[in-house]
Amino acid sequence: MLSTFSKLGVRPLAAGARCLTSLSEPSAPHLVTSSIPGPRSLQLKKELQDIQNADAVQLFVDYEKSIGNYLVDADGNTFLDCYTQISSLPLGYNHPAMIQAVTSPKNISTFVNRPALGILPPENHVERLRHSLLSVAPAGLSEVQTMACGSCSNENAFKAVFIKYMADQRNGRAPSPEELESCRYNKSPGSPNLSILSFDGSFHGRTFGCLSTTHSKPIHKLDIPSFDWPIAKYPRYKFPLEQNVAENAAEDKKCLAHVEELIEEWSKKGSPVAGLIVEPIQGEGGDNRASDEFFRALKDLTERKGVIFICDEVQTGCGPTGKWWAHEYWGMSTPPDIVCFSKKMLTGGYYYKTEVRPKEAYRIFNTWVGDPTKLLLLEEVIKVVKRENLLKNIQESGAAMLNGMLELSKKYPAMSNVRGRGTFCAADMATPGDRDKLVKQLHLQGVHCGGSGEKSLRLRTALTFQKKHADLFLERLETVLKTF
Amino acid sequence: MLSTFSKLGVRPLAAGARCLTSLSEPSAPHLVTSSIPGPRSLQLKKELQDIQNADAVQLFVDYEKSIGNYLVDADGNTFLDCYTQISSLPLGYNHPAMIQAVTSPKNISTFVNRPALGILPPENHVERLRHSLLSVAPAGLSEVQTMACGSCSNENAFKAVFIKYMADQRNGRAPSPEELESCRYNKSPGSPNLSILSFDGSFHGRTFGCLSTTHSKPIHKLDIPSFDWPIAKYPRYKFPLEQNVAENAAEDKKCLAHVEELIEEWSKKGSPVAGLIVEPIQGEGGDNRASDEFFRALKDLTERKGVIFICDEVQTGCGPTGKWWAHEYWGMSTPPDIVCFSKKMLTGGYYYKTEVRPKEAYRIFNTWVGDPTKLLLLEEVIKVVKRENLLKNIQESGAAMLNGMLELSKKYPAMSNVRGRGTFCAADMATPGDRDKLVKQLHLQGVHCGGSGEKSLRLRTALTFQKKHADLFLERLETVLKTF
Repeated sequence: MLSTFSKLGVRPLAAGARCLTSLSEPSAPHLVTSSIPGPRSLQLKKELQDIQNADAVQLFVDYEKSIGNYLVDADGNTFLDCYTQISSLPLGYNHPAMIQAVTSPKNISTFVNRPALGILPPENHVERLRHSLLSVAPAGLSEVQTMACGSCSNENAFKAVFIKYMADQRNGRAPSPEELESCRYNKSPGSPNLSILSFDGSFHGRTFGCLSTTHSKPIHKLDIPSFDWPIAKYPRYKFPLEQNVAENAAEDKKCLAHVEELIEEWSKKGSPVAGLIVEPIQGEGGDNRASDEFFRALKDLTERKGVIFICDEVQTGCGPTGKWWAHEYWGMSTPPDIVCFSKKMLTGGYYYKTEVRPKEAYRIFNTWVGDPTKLLLLEEVIKVVKRENLLKNIQESGAAMLNGMLELSKKYPAMSNVRGRGTFCAADMATPGDRDKLVKQLHLQGVHCGGSGEKSLRLRTALTFQKKHADLFLERLETVLKTF
Repeated sequence: MLSTFSKLGVRPLAAGARCLTSLSEPSAPHLVTSSIPGPRSLQLKKELQDIQNADAVQLFVDYEKSIGNYLVDADGNTFLDCYTQISSLPLGYNHPAMIQAVTSPKNISTFVNRPALGILPPENHVERLRHSLLSVAPAGLSEVQTMACGSCSNENAFKAVFIKYMADQRNGRAPSPEELESCRYNKSPGSPNLSILSFDGSFHGRTFGCLSTTHSKPIHKLDIPSFDWPIAKYPRYKFPLEQNVAENAAEDKKCLAHVEELIEEWSKKGSPVAGLIVEPIQGEGGDNRASDEFFRALKDLTERKGVIFICDEVQTGCGPTGKWWAHEYWGMSTPPDIVCFSKKMLTGGYYYKTEVRPKEAYRIFNTWVGDPTKLLLLEEVIKVVKRENLLKNIQESGAAMLNGMLELSKKYPAMSNVRGRGTFCAADMATPGDRDKLVKQLHLQGVHCGGSGEKSLRLRTALTFQKKHADLFLERLETVLKTF
């Protein structure tokens, strides 16, 4: 395998080696075509257009040549990657530990034989869950359900909430024949009228249940039938935060009151709120962040109202904020009732408190319920993060990035409202057009970023993103901001 | 790698070798524990119960030792597998071609770097789609959308249907500001009241959109809010079919009339039927099969009514009926508008006619939109199926299985209504209890099967299942039927 490692530009992992620094990364982005995308990407995109709508494709990528924090496209352009596959690549490209896991003979049968995990788990499944998902479980949550992707995770968390709500209503009584029969035909009482409360600006996925709780952009929602579920205001703060403390505290209160009103209102109209879902940072809707105080009060409110609190950490989970889970910043006395994950965690799923476990088999179930190959890779990710202290790394590189962006926003007023935790950072431009121009100009500077909400720049780095990468990003950002 | 191959009991694949016969399979099931599940499975199940509801777990499996059509459990029991991970294992366990694909150095980077396929596809993506999904596309459908699982495939097919319906309604007009704004808040006109028609007894998945079209068992549906979408009667035939031709044709007519009535009714109540979803065989709801004539007439009806026809081949697709797609049996002049797949295809997704392609980017989208590692494996599956003529194999072993079961049902009236196409076979027992007893007794005879619907035995073999396996199954089935 050594030749493959060399071909990939990766040195085999020596015992105790610090992978973070052992990657043969380039020292800077390097573009070889005069326009981006280059001719090869454009040609391939044209070919893909014959098969499906390929308009969202940005680049075709050479994943063999991509390395660490650098993405190499099909034309040979090398970008510093500050977006990492929509925030889903924990250790960057071709990390030696990942290659070792994939090439290890003991793992072959896992990659070859995908099980129906809910009925025929592999012999090592319990051990693997312990070494992967459970080893990073949010404090206070000891149970976990695997799923294939973020949308499925949220959909099934909602189902678990409804099942728990109705179990409480029944209070030990078995489902009635009428309930069992009516549910098959989408009718109450078997299919009850219950709801999940979500927040304006949120993104929780694109399948029908999730989409009813997603409210960031019309492109996700237009033309799709939806459940009539309540939508609360999410705090919108004035920046800089430290100069608007009282005003922002009042904003928190207003939004909390709105949540309480909606719970009352939906109860009165016969569609009780069984659960509430919220992102620690609205990662698609504009990197909007509510205060730790807001979340603590929101949790108290749900406890008082008997509403299950679902924390959607699909985008914030697995370290990008500098803690494994973003909700750890809140300083809560009790954990969220459910925490959903996917993306950087490589597998979808959700942690939950024991009270939310369905009593019957096959309630939360599908053919695959996840994929052990992703657990296998996650186990390696967790080992690397712990061994190399990557959360501390992200706190450091995140501080450098945030401070640098704050400095730049003072120097270049075209960019404002700089915010973030870890390297999970964002800033606003004056208009959607300016933001799009910024992202495009950064591309031409060899830096790959994304957009968030209407006019925000979105940064989502790998956990191996260091201060030197932040410096490089800031240098290119300044070059571009000068043109505004 | 040779040592790993030998350890797995697999001979490396020589050029042109017939894998079907080169697998070092055992010659028969072999049980080593006095009860099933054995003590090791029971112990592991107990441990898994600390982490999640594990009541659905049947066995813990040794996937390294499992081989071909034989599943080996954690206690060392060897079963003939006639259920193959809920019908999701196309070539059985540890097929040499799959091992080669997983261990090939050129594939490492695909397993290591999961892309956001919708924006940053790998350089070989178009080629891979052509060699995998497109090479087995249903006649008349040249476009394909990848997804992670069966539920996501159906959910997104529904979305494509609604998007197409509203595009037709707008007839070239851009969405209005009111539509764009209202959809964000789950309100019409942006979130319109539209419906998908499904059939009683169907199973289309367990997320909220899919679940509104699933009507097989209460355990899937109880307590979950649902869309109020129309549910048509699915033909229920009298057996044997050849003795009840007129009666069954009348049943077809009755069901078609019901579909038409419901389309009218839902249109009148302001929730027009935009699409219809149907399984060629209701694979979870009792292996109920409608006639080819029924499906042809249903397709004509949808064309007349402007309703998009979705064929759900998640369970029937990829060869188990003896054709790649079960709908090929129908002899239709035009293909279904959309064909959904997952399970044996290893990746989820759907084929669709060009008219169903959304005009805008990001309408059908999520972070991963599938997984190139599954396309890579599917490409190998397709090669093997073609090289080894496995569809013909399934037609032959399926005929042996079906004829053998028909003979047994004459000899043992406890089993009736034998039916199937290829090895996608089923039969009824007198009661749910009898069916459960049959499945359990077969287990004790070293044969792993499943249940379908209320009281049916469900058989779902790999495509490498040969006549000798069918004979073995029939022998064990007879042993068990004697006890009824």
